[in-house]
Amino acid sequence: MANPRTVGGATQDSRVGYVIRQMEPPNLETPLDLVDSFITPSDLFYVRSHLPVPVIEREAYRLTIDGAVDSPLSLSYDDLVRMGSETRVATLECAGNGRVFLIPPAPGAQWELGAVGNANWTGVPLSTLLERAGLASDAVEIVFEGADRGKPKEEPVPPGEISYARGIPRAKALQPDVLIAYQMNGEDLPRDHGFPVRAIVPGHFGMASVKWLTRIHAVRQPFLGYWQTIDYGYWYDTDGMAARGSLGEMLVKSEILRPRVHEKVPPNQVYPIFGYAWAGESDVVSVEVSTDGGQTWAVATFIDEIKRHAWRRWRFDWHTPQNPGEHVLLSRASDSSSNVQPDKHDPHFGSYVINYPLPILVFVEQAGG
Amino acid sequence: MANPRTVGGATQDSRVGYVIRQMEPPNLETPLDLVDSFITPSDLFYVRSHLPVPVIEREAYRLTIDGAVDSPLSLSYDDLVRMGSETRVATLECAGNGRVFLIPPAPGAQWELGAVGNANWTGVPLSTLLERAGLASDAVEIVFEGADRGKPKEEPVPPGEISYARGIPRAKALQPDVLIAYQMNGEDLPRDHGFPVRAIVPGHFGMASVKWLTRIHAVRQPFLGYWQTIDYGYWYDTDGMAARGSLGEMLVKSEILRPRVHEKVPPNQVYPIFGYAWAGESDVVSVEVSTDGGQTWAVATFIDEIKRHAWRRWRFDWHTPQNPGEHVLLSRASDSSSNVQPDKHDPHFGSYVINYPLPILVFVEQAGG
Repeated sequence: MANPRTVGGATQDSRVGYVIRQMEPPNLETPLDLVDSFITPSDLFYVRSHLPVPVIEREAYRLTIDGAVDSPLSLSYDDLVRMGSETRVATLECAGNGRVFLIPPAPGAQWELGAVGNANWTGVPLSTLLERAGLASDAVEIVFEGADRGKPKEEPVPPGEISYARGIPRAKALQPDVLIAYQMNGEDLPRDHGFPVRAIVPGHFGMASVKWLTRIHAVRQPFLGYWQTIDYGYWYDTDGMAARGSLGEMLVKSEILRPRVHEKVPPNQVYPIFGYAWAGESDVVSVEVSTDGGQTWAVATFIDEIKRHAWRRWRFDWHTPQNPGEHVLLSRASDSSSNVQPDKHDPHFGSYVINYPLPILVFVEQAGG
Repeated sequence: MANPRTVGGATQDSRVGYVIRQMEPPNLETPLDLVDSFITPSDLFYVRSHLPVPVIEREAYRLTIDGAVDSPLSLSYDDLVRMGSETRVATLECAGNGRVFLIPPAPGAQWELGAVGNANWTGVPLSTLLERAGLASDAVEIVFEGADRGKPKEEPVPPGEISYARGIPRAKALQPDVLIAYQMNGEDLPRDHGFPVRAIVPGHFGMASVKWLTRIHAVRQPFLGYWQTIDYGYWYDTDGMAARGSLGEMLVKSEILRPRVHEKVPPNQVYPIFGYAWAGESDVVSVEVSTDGGQTWAVATFIDEIKRHAWRRWRFDWHTPQNPGEHVLLSRASDSSSNVQPDKHDPHFGSYVINYPLPILVFVEQAGG
């Protein structure tokens, strides 16, 4: 049967919940075939936790801004809210989204398609805070440190417990779209999403948007923390030698959410193939769909307009074949910087940045079957 | 029985060979209790290979000097020899020397005490080559690349094969003691030691002295290669956060080579405890010995004078007890920068930099036993 849900409609009902990828700390995936709105509801937005989830009272919360600044700051939650608010829509994707498609299997949470979501985030621009603190002219990165502490898993690990921390380049930190956010979709941040305060770095993979943010630390040397070098690192070629880099910007990507893998679709009908597409610091300008495993491609139709840093929903009406059989569906997005999804996974990214067209195998049923 | 060999004498005989730590590529340890000369013979000097050993003909050899330089160079073996020669004595220690003492066991070659050696190295100062090539004023590191290529073992690994490569800071590279060497102890480099040409970086752990050197590459950003970040990396604290650094300078260390672990020593006699001591960019100025597991310490006597970057042999005459029993022997060196060997292993170094006093458990025999 074709999926009965309305494309792009309000689809959330009480039977919709998460796919568990890890129990503790919680790693929960959104069933995006059932949650197909432009804005992902907060209580169904994917959850990616690295370390035990901290409990922080709003009244006890402090945010420190220190390091390479003229005037270190220590702000309360109320101080932050009083500094005004801006709201930005931003798609966050876990850098490991799609990992379960990798052959051979790669270690890590086995995300399928739903470790990505789009929300409205409200807070103070980071640039406002850095201006107030007086960012040093020779600061090269801004490091976000969270209140979540523990022992990471993959060797080599530092001794003892460490806090989750990630740096972003100075240029990105000064863009007005980077927020120190205290609201998600118009309400307090849920605990799993960083209550009371988190960073939001639009255009970057989700790990840059540090949750339970307690410190903004400006540094004069690139920060080579665990989640910059060991985890969330990648390999690049520098003058013929392999060197370690740190993941940052998301790459152009599209996903087919409907039909689902191994779905049975009726013959000789119009099936609305539905999906999302997004990019990092550029705009998605086209999505193509193949229903024959990549031999031929046709252009899909966007449901949403271009909005920098937000995904776009798209659909493609597939006239399903008369004869029963297997079909591999693919989608392929292009962005405004002329980037196209690659044909296959780039092994330099290891178990991250899975942005090749992910194969959705479906079965066309027997007529009258 | 007390060890019958002469302390500091010419001890090599035809029965002396290596301890195998890995067959291929060869990782071979020197039995330093039997090879106790100031200069370690080339054919018993420890061998540490990361990747399959390359075969390079002298006639086909080329050394490229490129990157952040005004005039890239390509030199033949003869070009290099014609640039003159300097000879330096230098102790090289594998950063994993002593790993087998770690509790719990750590992965990697299980070196005991003999992954360290001292040799005379002859070649052209690196500074001479950099001067001729015109090192850019903003070059921050010099990267040595070897001809040995392959797949490293510990995840995360880059895709495909990479060549062994290590960088040293600009300041070190310009010191006249860093050599591009083509002789070891007055003869051609043995194949396992880098024939025809290798780097020698005195004061640094052995992995900086890249063998089968084919490229000297000046860079304007720190080089974050596999053997800088994943392997041969360590953790340090930066403003309360853990960050990844790259091992470089050796730390002060001493070893007891005689007696050996579980050796039976006669009661009520003078047993000459023998060992080596070395440091990185400083001089070893004292060695203390404990024969009671660290409760009391007494000063040892040096056999060799201070010579920067070379080890010093030392001895301590132990008046063995009358009664039989177990004794834990320890040695502890201090250097001219007031560094002393630490009481225990620093977990920030992982399975490297094992420079706490290594316990040598011996048994005093029954009188007349």
